[in-house]
Amino acid sequence: MNTWAIRNVDVRTENGVQTGRTIVIEGHRIRAIEANPTLPSDCEVWDGQGMLAMPGLVNSHTHVAMTLFRSYADDVALMDWLQNHIWPAEEKLTDELVYWGAQWAFAEMIRGGTTAFSDMYMHMDAVAEAAVAVGMRGNLARGLAGVSPNAAAALEENIELHRKWHGAEDGLLRVMLGPHAPYTCPAEYLKQVVAAAEKEDMEIHIHLSETQGEVATCKEKHGMSPIAWMEHLGIFRRPTLAAHCVHVDAADIDIMARHHVRVAHNPRSNLKLASGVAPVPQMRAAGVVVGLATDGASSNNKLSMFDEMQYAALIHKGVQYDPFAIGAGEALAMATREGARALGYDDLGELAPGMLADLILVDRSGYHWEPCYHIDSMLAYAAQPSDVDSVVIHGKPVMRQRELLTIDTEKVRAEMQRAKEYFAGLH
Amino acid sequence: MNTWAIRNVDVRTENGVQTGRTIVIEGHRIRAIEANPTLPSDCEVWDGQGMLAMPGLVNSHTHVAMTLFRSYADDVALMDWLQNHIWPAEEKLTDELVYWGAQWAFAEMIRGGTTAFSDMYMHMDAVAEAAVAVGMRGNLARGLAGVSPNAAAALEENIELHRKWHGAEDGLLRVMLGPHAPYTCPAEYLKQVVAAAEKEDMEIHIHLSETQGEVATCKEKHGMSPIAWMEHLGIFRRPTLAAHCVHVDAADIDIMARHHVRVAHNPRSNLKLASGVAPVPQMRAAGVVVGLATDGASSNNKLSMFDEMQYAALIHKGVQYDPFAIGAGEALAMATREGARALGYDDLGELAPGMLADLILVDRSGYHWEPCYHIDSMLAYAAQPSDVDSVVIHGKPVMRQRELLTIDTEKVRAEMQRAKEYFAGLH
Repeated sequence: MNTWAIRNVDVRTENGVQTGRTIVIEGHRIRAIEANPTLPSDCEVWDGQGMLAMPGLVNSHTHVAMTLFRSYADDVALMDWLQNHIWPAEEKLTDELVYWGAQWAFAEMIRGGTTAFSDMYMHMDAVAEAAVAVGMRGNLARGLAGVSPNAAAALEENIELHRKWHGAEDGLLRVMLGPHAPYTCPAEYLKQVVAAAEKEDMEIHIHLSETQGEVATCKEKHGMSPIAWMEHLGIFRRPTLAAHCVHVDAADIDIMARHHVRVAHNPRSNLKLASGVAPVPQMRAAGVVVGLATDGASSNNKLSMFDEMQYAALIHKGVQYDPFAIGAGEALAMATREGARALGYDDLGELAPGMLADLILVDRSGYHWEPCYHIDSMLAYAAQPSDVDSVVIHGKPVMRQRELLTIDTEKVRAEMQRAKEYFAGLH
Repeated sequence: MNTWAIRNVDVRTENGVQTGRTIVIEGHRIRAIEANPTLPSDCEVWDGQGMLAMPGLVNSHTHVAMTLFRSYADDVALMDWLQNHIWPAEEKLTDELVYWGAQWAFAEMIRGGTTAFSDMYMHMDAVAEAAVAVGMRGNLARGLAGVSPNAAAALEENIELHRKWHGAEDGLLRVMLGPHAPYTCPAEYLKQVVAAAEKEDMEIHIHLSETQGEVATCKEKHGMSPIAWMEHLGIFRRPTLAAHCVHVDAADIDIMARHHVRVAHNPRSNLKLASGVAPVPQMRAAGVVVGLATDGASSNNKLSMFDEMQYAALIHKGVQYDPFAIGAGEALAMATREGARALGYDDLGELAPGMLADLILVDRSGYHWEPCYHIDSMLAYAAQPSDVDSVVIHGKPVMRQRELLTIDTEKVRAEMQRAKEYFAGLH
């Protein structure tokens, strides 16, 4: 197994910054973090002088190929956006477009310190291939709309995706089942999804309780909230990652906690689409695992986990009139180890021996970094994507000194520009 | 008068991007924006290839020297923060510390595209000197706490500041009177401030209705809201810049509109201090001029107007369940020409002949910029401070290709680090 090291680096820990450490990476994992470990004589060594090492950021809910639709239609109402802009454009997607859109998303994500993502979309083989090509840690789900004419075929596709890619690249990729949402999936279809999940031993990734309207309609139709409805249908018998959960009440949170439902909190997307602000402090208080996420670039309009972390750290204080709603360290945890747990990992999101080696080096030389009295405060309230200097995923360098090592960015940029001309023509 | 030009640059206008323009700058103002203007033969010319020119961002309420207290004490309750951390530290401030703290703030602000600020603090001669040294456009006020033993002396100091600096550097600096807030200034003192403002022909910069507690206490004590109380005392007879205005109701907004009170909206600071979310769409609908602001770095923890613009564009949609609450173009206007109006300018904040030449060049080559279907969407939802390439203030370049031209950043960094050691010792 390849062994290499990052020497002379500062490491962010729960108790502040440990200075002058050496991080030893062996294969896909961290072997040691020590002051002066013995290294093999032919070991590659990076000089980490001045850098802060921290876990890579985990984007727990996105649609990576929707980079293709960044700023395609903004400041329109949700249904207008979907029906008149996004859905017609998505009809025109191909494996090739999705492949390039995904690679472009990975370029932006890695540049800003994101090392793992959880995706729900279509043409997912192309997303898997892009992730393998780039070395990006991915958790993939085929979006399943039960109301669609291709609902049965899509479920088969998702199962096939699992057989083909789950655990691929020594565990770099995982696959979940992706029933889109209660309002696009009838009860019968959701029961089929649960049956498939049990048969194939798969986890589930679903959108839940994103808008007030969704909750109201579900209560009207089924006499219960989307969360209670999902429990009723057995979805939560499987480990579930639920995106959004903006409109959940105490009874919903109780259900989620009992079933260990993991949440992907999307602060910027929920604001931009006028969905609201999720009761994250309440979910966390109930013991629910909450990760952070960007959603697609089309409803954000970027894929910056440092931004999501800052929105998560700030917005709950403001809307709940509570300066302690989400502390800096909590926001950091949500962006790293809680996000990893949301994706189903228990060996990711912390820098410690034995953990998977997904880590980033943060350059603190920017003017906004001085003075730094408290590292967590600076990361949770002031750091920027552009501060990220180097990125390692699964033990392998993917960015060094701000240069992407596994993406031909000029090639992908050209493909994105070609795609833009194509989709602009559809407007 | 010095004439120079930026050639081959794209210019953001109300109607999209004009490509391949030349911006001609003569002295402190824009003389022309044309496709192929005639230039003097010895004219300095920048190549603007690939760059987007837009107005410099206006930070309408800050305390620049509080960069010294960035991350000094976070995640503590407001009164603990003030009484046990900030106020004792501020007691130790000197002209020299404030001078370096201000220069450091200007470095961060210019790096992120901010070209003007409105400040309320102490040791304001030092802030003025720092602004002159850097070439930063400033609107200065001495913070006046009427309850303080030095209240009378501070008012004299503010008047002296006005005599010395108002209009200095060909209008680069302006001076306002800075009564801190209704809860720190008794009625008699505020009347003295109004009298001084009338005698000296000065405008007023004040904190108003920042917290629920402030409004409740004011109503209890004076039988009216802080806004109504200020109207009653005659403050609004003078042109007034009111910071925060988080807790204003329809009656307050009506008073503000009638008196042309200008507002500095501080979205991130209001969230971080758990103050709430200001009813900005309602204020704007009533015709109130609303600029954007960071507040001090100690309650933010950065001075990034691109961030404030994005919070302003996103947060009101989310908390008011209205996707049209603040559109991308509105957020841009608030960060530029509305901010300029908040500072009392009618010839700043737009790129047009005759306007003051405060402008920035934005580099759109970052991965988060592709594709760009709508320039305003990208600026209001995706752009980052690190995208700013070059900055011009009052016709003079202060940053070129990300290099600050008027600040000895290593000298100032060393002073900031010395200050940090000093203040850390007080903890």
